[in-house]
Amino acid sequence: MDLHVKLLARITGFLFILAALAMVLPTVVSVIYGEEKSTFSFLAVILPSLFVGILMVLFIKPSHNTLHMRDGFIMVAMSWILISAIAALPYVIHGCIPHYVDAFFEAASGFSTTGASILNDIESLPKSMLFWRSFAHWLGGMGILVFAVALLPALGISGQMIVRAETPGPTLSKVTPHTSDMARVLYLIYTGMTIAETLFLLLGGLSFYDAIVHTFATVGTGGFSTYNASIAAFQSPYVEGVITVFMIFSGVNFNLYFLALAGGLRHFWRDAEFRLYILITLLATLATTLYLTATQTYSSLLTSFRYSVFQVVSILTTTGFSTTDFALWPTFTLLILFGLFFVGGSSSSTGGGVKVVRVLVLLQLIKRNLALRIHPNALVTIKLDHKPLHSSTVQGISSFLFLYLLLVFITGLLVSLDGFDLMTSFSAAASCVGNIGPGFHDVGPAFNYSIFSAPVKWVLSFAMIAGRLELFTLLMLLSRRFWNPN
Amino acid sequence: MDLHVKLLARITGFLFILAALAMVLPTVVSVIYGEEKSTFSFLAVILPSLFVGILMVLFIKPSHNTLHMRDGFIMVAMSWILISAIAALPYVIHGCIPHYVDAFFEAASGFSTTGASILNDIESLPKSMLFWRSFAHWLGGMGILVFAVALLPALGISGQMIVRAETPGPTLSKVTPHTSDMARVLYLIYTGMTIAETLFLLLGGLSFYDAIVHTFATVGTGGFSTYNASIAAFQSPYVEGVITVFMIFSGVNFNLYFLALAGGLRHFWRDAEFRLYILITLLATLATTLYLTATQTYSSLLTSFRYSVFQVVSILTTTGFSTTDFALWPTFTLLILFGLFFVGGSSSSTGGGVKVVRVLVLLQLIKRNLALRIHPNALVTIKLDHKPLHSSTVQGISSFLFLYLLLVFITGLLVSLDGFDLMTSFSAAASCVGNIGPGFHDVGPAFNYSIFSAPVKWVLSFAMIAGRLELFTLLMLLSRRFWNPN
Repeated sequence: MDLHVKLLARITGFLFILAALAMVLPTVVSVIYGEEKSTFSFLAVILPSLFVGILMVLFIKPSHNTLHMRDGFIMVAMSWILISAIAALPYVIHGCIPHYVDAFFEAASGFSTTGASILNDIESLPKSMLFWRSFAHWLGGMGILVFAVALLPALGISGQMIVRAETPGPTLSKVTPHTSDMARVLYLIYTGMTIAETLFLLLGGLSFYDAIVHTFATVGTGGFSTYNASIAAFQSPYVEGVITVFMIFSGVNFNLYFLALAGGLRHFWRDAEFRLYILITLLATLATTLYLTATQTYSSLLTSFRYSVFQVVSILTTTGFSTTDFALWPTFTLLILFGLFFVGGSSSSTGGGVKVVRVLVLLQLIKRNLALRIHPNALVTIKLDHKPLHSSTVQGISSFLFLYLLLVFITGLLVSLDGFDLMTSFSAAASCVGNIGPGFHDVGPAFNYSIFSAPVKWVLSFAMIAGRLELFTLLMLLSRRFWNPN
Repeated sequence: MDLHVKLLARITGFLFILAALAMVLPTVVSVIYGEEKSTFSFLAVILPSLFVGILMVLFIKPSHNTLHMRDGFIMVAMSWILISAIAALPYVIHGCIPHYVDAFFEAASGFSTTGASILNDIESLPKSMLFWRSFAHWLGGMGILVFAVALLPALGISGQMIVRAETPGPTLSKVTPHTSDMARVLYLIYTGMTIAETLFLLLGGLSFYDAIVHTFATVGTGGFSTYNASIAAFQSPYVEGVITVFMIFSGVNFNLYFLALAGGLRHFWRDAEFRLYILITLLATLATTLYLTATQTYSSLLTSFRYSVFQVVSILTTTGFSTTDFALWPTFTLLILFGLFFVGGSSSSTGGGVKVVRVLVLLQLIKRNLALRIHPNALVTIKLDHKPLHSSTVQGISSFLFLYLLLVFITGLLVSLDGFDLMTSFSAAASCVGNIGPGFHDVGPAFNYSIFSAPVKWVLSFAMIAGRLELFTLLMLLSRRFWNPN
């Protein structure tokens, strides 16, 4: 057996163990609520997974541990696919989601923190199964932080990702830790945020179960709710407010929390991506609020603001919760939300999509080229936080966006084979690649993805994982050059 | 008076004279058909325009003739706006288009070779007015060739435009003429194409009038017809075939005709943009034909092909003719047409849109960045026709596409204020910026732009001109830096 194959097989073993361990918590939940069938379903997956995993780790011993870049890509793509594939099994064994394709879609939607669902009646599922579904968001959110902070730089994509850990400004270079320390601090922040939101939701009168599952979906920017009506079920401006604030927090670059802890709050405002993120939130909320008021969609300015700010933040951070059927909103506000589909959260946050920092660089690129038309010999460099960007970084970001749009378009073409209308097909594609959740028309907040055929569900599951792993990682596996480097 | 203002005023004078001269031909047509009211309307514009123009040219004498780059931009933007503004007057004076905003929309749509119309009953207009409307396409098409071949290089945008006159391949450098000679040859080719299509359409049984006005709309990739049913009115596969072939010809880089005349037909196939242009046409036609046959939208494979090839070519070349209400097609085929909205004709053709060469470079950019992910130290340069492209050219092309998408989005937002649905608003914006003509839903081939309010019509008129002048030219005028260079 080839050395790399051996190493990958060993990692697969670890993934089996990891998946099994992740299911311990929902198993406990199933015991607490006395859901015996669920307990059995989880154990029926945990035990064989542990067995296979331990065997693989024990008996496959590669001679050394050097991970080549190619193996790194395979590993990352494999992790998300394999974990989703195992995570889907309890649903099928239990029978609450009878078809494997639906269960895989739901699991991939969970781990990719998308929040798109094929469930027609969420509330009919056992509490432990819904817990497992939401817990996937939390794990996926943590996974993406490892991916962005520790793995991507190791895979040599730091130039592309502009990982802030490497460019925190000259005065702070002394406090910049190693990536492994950095990662540990980020998990603490992520966990702290989880505890804080749970407490705030408990104060709002939610049960501990409701508080924790909705916190999972918020901090992971996922969007699964345990209610058919999503957050609207709580009928509470307080709960909506808490979730809005924590959605905003989750869409912020997590490195900034680290920097702020070390060097003060001014680091937030010093960050150009953060400023644009806040600016987009404010402008979109303002425009939406005013238009909804002017068109008398809601009775008062305050009500318009309540629904606007929640929906804007939910789409921008790619969470996908809803408090109203925004599909019924006037076109102008729909188009604003549709624009936010192509922005997404900040880099190194749990949010998906194109990412605010890329939009920032692209806006600067336009500005630069306008300036060059006026003064062809002017020296206009593209800067991020006062540091010039290398032209290869700018090209990397440009090509990312084209690939992103191309992937949305091709996914949309494949989805359209099911015969639904153009907005349904295209928005389903854009929503899944962007890890958002709801789309427009037949996949709007009042509907779900159960309408699609099995092949389209596979395509959308792939699209969610591709979007989550920043496209290149998964698409790389389709490249001829990748498999035949010489 | 400032020197540049004097120079621009003198050029304005020339534009008045030019507009007056352009109206001589429709005046002749009005005399032939005995449309006295039209004759009067044209003369009522021609005579004052000539008077004002000659006065301005005679009495405003700038001390020297050096055109600065800034003046060049103002001049080009002003030309298209002023000519449209004057061209709109006969419609209003005659009364066949009573409101000036509608007349301006129709004129701007004509000169920008868009073909979007606000007319509910085209056939009710006098023949001479419809001739003037279509003649604008032909003049606009010729204008854009001057712009692309002679003006853009002079304005220093050749790097952006990748004008092939400057990169015809090493073996041909000896035959490359000066831009003025080049322009003259292109007009001859354009005129030759006009005569050829007119003859072929006459052979198909069309009247001389019908043949010439539809030729104007084809070679200018405009799309105005004199019939409410557009090309479907002729019910003739032969006529559709002739128009399809000439639409394809008009979407080809005109420099290639020049090169082929000098050095043989092989120059077409050597050109990477031409190959991609043909490839896109073939693939889109194939996919559309097969899907329309499979879904039994049309009774036979041949009928599906007939409607597919016409519609694909019509949208790709940004002509906008229709032989069927494609809005009723299944979603998969609609999405293919929607994708073509963002491709457009070749560079230095009369077609609008993003242009095939830019799509080509962007595809290469994606390919390059995939390769760089696998081998970070690989030297992968982006080449066009075996010549490496400078990174500033690639950045210029990237920023063009972002600006394009941004302009479509912002235009769509403004259009959506009229309250029509999302597809109507967005496709109207994309169609006007891309100089195509029809959109989807309420602006589909069976409908027109009369549904919009006056402010939205102004926005769309501006969008058509901005799209025609490759965005930067017109948007530059909105830049603060442009007016305060220091």
